Amino acid sequence: MIVITSPHISEERVAEIVHQIEKTGVQAHVSRGVDRTVIGIIGKADPQLAEHIRSMRDVENVIKISKSYKLASRDFHPDDTIIEVKGVKIGGDNLVVMGGPCAVETPEQIDEIARLVKAAGGQVLRGGAFKPRTGPYSFQGIGIEGLKWMKEAGDKYGLLTITEVMTPETVEVCAEYADILQVGTRNMQNFDLLRKLGTIQNPVLLKRGFSATYDEWLNAAEYILAGGNPNVMLCERGIRTFETYTRNTFDLAAIPVVQQLSHLPVIADPSHATGRRELVETMSKASVAAGANGLIIEMHTDPDNSATGDGVQSLFPDQFAKLLKELAQLAPLMGKRFD
Amino acid sequence: MIVITSPHISEERVAEIVHQIEKTGVQAHVSRGVDRTVIGIIGKADPQLAEHIRSMRDVENVIKISKSYKLASRDFHPDDTIIEVKGVKIGGDNLVVMGGPCAVETPEQIDEIARLVKAAGGQVLRGGAFKPRTGPYSFQGIGIEGLKWMKEAGDKYGLLTITEVMTPETVEVCAEYADILQVGTRNMQNFDLLRKLGTIQNPVLLKRGFSATYDEWLNAAEYILAGGNPNVMLCERGIRTFETYTRNTFDLAAIPVVQQLSHLPVIADPSHATGRRELVETMSKASVAAGANGLIIEMHTDPDNSATGDGVQSLFPDQFAKLLKELAQLAPLMGKRFD
Amino acid sequence: MIVITSPHISEERVAEIVHQIEKTGVQAHVSRGVDRTVIGIIGKADPQLAEHIRSMRDVENVIKISKSYKLASRDFHPDDTIIEVKGVKIGGDNLVVMGGPCAVETPEQIDEIARLVKAAGGQVLRGGAFKPRTGPYSFQGIGIEGLKWMKEAGDKYGLLTITEVMTPETVEVCAEYADILQVGTRNMQNFDLLRKLGTIQNPVLLKRGFSATYDEWLNAAEYILAGGNPNVMLCERGIRTFETYTRNTFDLAAIPVVQQLSHLPVIADPSHATGRRELVETMSKASVAAGANGLIIEMHTDPDNSATGDGVQSLFPDQFAKLLKELAQLAPLMGKRFD
Amino acid sequence: MIVITSPHISEERVAEIVHQIEKTGVQAHVSRGVDRTVIGIIGKADPQLAEHIRSMRDVENVIKISKSYKLASRDFHPDDTIIEVKGVKIGGDNLVVMGGPCAVETPEQIDEIARLVKAAGGQVLRGGAFKPRTGPYSFQGIGIEGLKWMKEAGDKYGLLTITEVMTPETVEVCAEYADILQVGTRNMQNFDLLRKLGTIQNPVLLKRGFSATYDEWLNAAEYILAGGNPNVMLCERGIRTFETYTRNTFDLAAIPVVQQLSHLPVIADPSHATGRRELVETMSKASVAAGANGLIIEMHTDPDNSATGDGVQSLFPDQFAKLLKELAQLAPLMGKRFD
Repeated sequence: MIVITSPHISEERVAEIVHQIEKTGVQAHVSRGVDRTVIGIIGKADPQLAEHIRSMRDVENVIKISKSYKLASRDFHPDDTIIEVKGVKIGGDNLVVMGGPCAVETPEQIDEIARLVKAAGGQVLRGGAFKPRTGPYSFQGIGIEGLKWMKEAGDKYGLLTITEVMTPETVEVCAEYADILQVGTRNMQNFDLLRKLGTIQNPVLLKRGFSATYDEWLNAAEYILAGGNPNVMLCERGIRTFETYTRNTFDLAAIPVVQQLSHLPVIADPSHATGRRELVETMSKASVAAGANGLIIEMHTDPDNSATGDGVQSLFPDQFAKLLKELAQLAPLMGKRFD
Repeated sequence: MIVITSPHISEERVAEIVHQIEKTGVQAHVSRGVDRTVIGIIGKADPQLAEHIRSMRDVENVIKISKSYKLASRDFHPDDTIIEVKGVKIGGDNLVVMGGPCAVETPEQIDEIARLVKAAGGQVLRGGAFKPRTGPYSFQGIGIEGLKWMKEAGDKYGLLTITEVMTPETVEVCAEYADILQVGTRNMQNFDLLRKLGTIQNPVLLKRGFSATYDEWLNAAEYILAGGNPNVMLCERGIRTFETYTRNTFDLAAIPVVQQLSHLPVIADPSHATGRRELVETMSKASVAAGANGLIIEMHTDPDNSATGDGVQSLFPDQFAKLLKELAQLAPLMGKRFD
Repeated sequence: MIVITSPHISEERVAEIVHQIEKTGVQAHVSRGVDRTVIGIIGKADPQLAEHIRSMRDVENVIKISKSYKLASRDFHPDDTIIEVKGVKIGGDNLVVMGGPCAVETPEQIDEIARLVKAAGGQVLRGGAFKPRTGPYSFQGIGIEGLKWMKEAGDKYGLLTITEVMTPETVEVCAEYADILQVGTRNMQNFDLLRKLGTIQNPVLLKRGFSATYDEWLNAAEYILAGGNPNVMLCERGIRTFETYTRNTFDLAAIPVVQQLSHLPVIADPSHATGRRELVETMSKASVAAGANGLIIEMHTDPDNSATGDGVQSLFPDQFAKLLKELAQLAPLMGKRFD
Repeated sequence: MIVITSPHISEERVAEIVHQIEKTGVQAHVSRGVDRTVIGIIGKADPQLAEHIRSMRDVENVIKISKSYKLASRDFHPDDTIIEVKGVKIGGDNLVVMGGPCAVETPEQIDEIARLVKAAGGQVLRGGAFKPRTGPYSFQGIGIEGLKWMKEAGDKYGLLTITEVMTPETVEVCAEYADILQVGTRNMQNFDLLRKLGTIQNPVLLKRGFSATYDEWLNAAEYILAGGNPNVMLCERGIRTFETYTRNTFDLAAIPVVQQLSHLPVIADPSHATGRRELVETMSKASVAAGANGLIIEMHTDPDNSATGDGVQSLFPDQFAKLLKELAQLAPLMGKRFD
């Protein structure tokens, strides 16, 4: 950690700051430059020290050199985390594809889509039973009934299932019916939810907040890991920028970046990242070329008669099947297995 | 609502889209332009209709003309909402100042700060007992004990109190001890929390999500209002942009904009918006000149010995007192009472 | 074009607005909704009409349905533009790789790098002689001498050359020595420069402004095309967002988007988009998977002893050669020729 | 300057980096932390050194402590710059108001508006003769004729004049007819134009690029100052963010920030910052409360019949006059003279 002081700071004030630092058990090295005095901190600093020093008078900036997360960091866990669920491996050189509708609507709908996901070669069935919606008057999801229909469909076709969990209270019921729990972009910093997910063992797919930095995202993962659940995968789903043609800006460089910073698997979500059906196939391939460990893709059989919105980015079944065939060719070139 | 179709759409497909629209009970008017066909929708459309149509094949865009929120809209409630709590009026031509530390630390600390807030002319004591923190290893707040200390200090000096509530489960205990509940920027779209706050009558200060549009912010307020709690105030606290010199970019134009769109009071938070003590006084005045109905400002007596972070933007007591004197001169020029 | 008026607009005022619209030779259709009156414009509207109407009293918004650019649009030119320079084809199903240093430094440096680019299979040698720099005290480039050295190296090894042109006055000298002229991100809306480039026939690589929308980018291309130079290629090089870990956020979805909107070739610049050497190889592959018609990549033999900056994202020659081998395998899967 | 190396860097490599640093005549101090080695640089480093080191192998980051601009910095010029033009003082405790149309249209129009600006108490007449436009088919301005009409109107009513200059070649003709030259947001990094403006003595109003950081903005000013023209004022005109309700996000904190970093006057442009007439008056007051040294405001007598666009943010003359009366009351409270 490096502390940069105001210009013209007095010797006495520097000494006071050094005193505050050293009483936490680390060493402080002062070097006086032309304009600024810089204090380097050597030793294992308490996570709260940076915040404390930043709030002191005459401190202009504090620059952290070490990362604030530990369990999520590759520095402390050099090998890729591989999460295994009922024989499906996620992470490392495995490519996983999760497909399904934005929202579960009827037992027939989810059964038919599950059949199509399986036939195309997907391993996981996605589907929302609880939906986070911008306004209170929009469709908020089918609820627990939907989870049951999805579990039946998953069991019938031999697919894992993934669903979004929105509150600490529904973690248990979601974990009962779904294999993987998904934290949505608006909940990435719902710390109570993250803490609760740390107490279970189901794998968690943690979507990046649409304005979260890599550091905030990995700190959010740290909440789950620190609670005792090591089965976390990260999901890049686009960030909010000035460009509004696509719903979000798909930050594909996030994939190799967080794979360098962390050992956790990274899944890409081209459906929400672009919000446009006609871009999903191309951006799915680009995600795999960027090194993604998996994809989560919306697919729907009949968006014309869907009551649930978000169909604008859903692939039709024939598009989904064609894409997976192409991914099977691309994956080996990228050092990934897809079978 | 206006639907823009793909170029070269067939007559049959237009007819199908019109059919889907009209079966919801509204009228559709088709006009064929040079490049695109446009379908205008006349009548009171269901909030889910836009989403449904957007997901249809051959629909390029859906543009909403009416707003998706109702109770928060000035169209349906032309007069300013004025929230009255124990004789303090918030909204309309009243200016309210909320001051206090980032976090409650000890009974002595909050008592001393309450005394200073009152002496300077503030009406509300702020202080966090539950703190949302980026990483799991940072100080997470004192908890309920802190709420009690703050209530005592508020009662002793005749100040209202405001504190952040982070989860649905703690809404009741927070509402028992604090007069006003604050929803933090990361929780603006924690819909369960919003729904719970709709079930009580304590006023709620809803901070804008750091990447939320005005529309999303007012829709979040709508969740609380639709639940039955009319006492909502909005708080602009800066948005995330490419500029990193200030912690956030203080979007002061948000104040007159949401006052035009909505009847709810708007409070400005120059402390978190800038993250720099030396900017807080100037930006407090700019907030009042922009029409803010109030300010929420961090103040601390001894940031050097605070264990809680965020002191970097806290005013010292003498700065706080001087600022409030200057605001008392500025307020009348802006048509506001501050007394 | 659709005009949305203020609520409660009078019949008289609507009639005045309609009059203003119709005197430009197009038709106006008025429809009155619940909250707003909407005026649809049918016919070939003058590009200035939208601006004019937006500035009228009681007009709340003007939504353009047709695009404001014509020559750059795929609507008016359905087939891919293929630019041919000295036997190298850019666009369509050809993949082109441009490599070289950020800045030309010495004749020996550029000769050696040209040799390596050719040996690896690249077709174009890049190198800056005039450098845009944030501050006036940074190295501003070698100037014309550098152009000559680069031309010699290009001729010797049978490579096309590309260099950045920064001012209208130097367009001619750059066009004399270099095959392709590059417009940098800060100059995307230097309209005088664009107009000048419309008067020559050398191909122009137009980098996206780091905060430009797709629409602004294609309008910038329109300036060059409208001047009479049809040989324009677009270059995605990252946009500015809140994330600072990478120098820019690489907006890979821009590639398929502008390929749908326009017929012009799209080149990706993973070096400047990421600003980090360790990401360039992965993001080069992702660019090709996203459909890029080519890549422009920085490569340097000795960044330790370079005086010119920007080496942080330069590949070493062995990395560059290995990457091009891998691209040769990837290209056919994406329907591209790379030879 | 502080250099942060990769983890696990060898002693030999650290020694090589130190050697590269020290051969430029500054000292390097190495300190080895738990995870990283940090090299502090003491002494007056060459501006190019940071770039050079960043490009070296095993260097993870370079953090600059000193600013890269000198002449624009308050560190080297503690007193406010006050620019005096024909008796009008800009900077320090003077408030200046510049008003007028987006574009000069006819001699009658600019004469009438000049009369109104003067009557309301403004000191400077603004008006564009050369207009930067996103697309090539929009109105590009009247040209030199417009400059002459504006000069006549300014002379007649005793107003200074300001106009936008877009290219190095037109600097001289603009400087002949206008008192102050304005650099538009898209040209903030048109370095050739900045260099040319360094060679004249007319005051220059340098608008912030719509995605420029404070540091880039002050470096752009440095180009003009370093060329020999000390008469630079900065203009905050809004930045591009995700919020699209306002045309830009008005970054009012930029005013006190750049006044702390620099001695140059800061002018606010609420018209372009908001793009909405109904926000201009409020945000003008907020700008003055934030400490602005002046305002540049669009005003038009007849936007209905203007052919030039941008009228959507123009005040009507009565609004402009009322605003200036209110500013005359507000200015003294902010320590400013407005007369």
